[in-house]
Amino acid sequence: MQSRITSSEEREVLSANAELYRAFRERDLAAMRALWSQEHPVACIHPGWEALYGRDEVMASWQAILENPDAPDVSCVEANAAVLGETAYVTCVEQLGPQVELVATNLFVRENGRWRLVHHQAGPFTRDSEREVDPTELN
Amino acid sequence: MQSRITSSEEREVLSANAELYRAFRERDLAAMRALWSQEHPVACIHPGWEALYGRDEVMASWQAILENPDAPDVSCVEANAAVLGETAYVTCVEQLGPQVELVATNLFVRENGRWRLVHHQAGPFTRDSEREVDPTELN
Repeated sequence: MQSRITSSEEREVLSANAELYRAFRERDLAAMRALWSQEHPVACIHPGWEALYGRDEVMASWQAILENPDAPDVSCVEANAAVLGETAYVTCVEQLGPQVELVATNLFVRENGRWRLVHHQAGPFTRDSEREVDPTELN
Repeated sequence: MQSRITSSEEREVLSANAELYRAFRERDLAAMRALWSQEHPVACIHPGWEALYGRDEVMASWQAILENPDAPDVSCVEANAAVLGETAYVTCVEQLGPQVELVATNLFVRENGRWRLVHHQAGPFTRDSEREVDPTELN
């Protein structure tokens, strides 16, 4: 985060985060399944959805999204990683097609030497430069 | 998560999560400052905002919210905690006044024996029972 050198652990986490969006973009369900934790309680909050709990429910949601022919192209920009021991979180911006941007949190845990997802939340936002009202009034 | 007995660690995390919403509701800036980590990189995504990074920026945002006389009453329901060693995450629903519900993630780290916030994201959602379209089309 902020302007400093990214550590090797942070680079590992950012690599796992990039793999999430590669799997999403390429509709690679096997990779998506492999990315999510097998050993820890997982949850997922897709944009506009209620929270989903448990690997079965979360993976079913990703399968529905990846198999939906109308799902948009996705890419990830502005990713920042913070490592908290055996857990790490990434904040980033998801670009869905040419028009839509979402802000996202991805939470990873180290599992058998690999960073695996345990939680994802994405939601809409407006960039400060495009705001017309005081954002403190919106909370 | 799911239907099982809540562990003592999960109860500790849920207690810290409840303290976040008590401090928010009672405009208790000192408690809010004490709740956020001093030792780890913090971030915060208020509903509709860009991600904020670093304790100074995050605490300034909470000060602006807590000092805003128009900020709504807030309460937290449907909180689920998952402990990942020295880190834990909570998903919950924030009720803002009588009309608005947001879905939120709160990420905690154990710091000097207390659970401290390192990250928060909240955003809008629609309950499944109120949906009119296939949610997989919205991602």
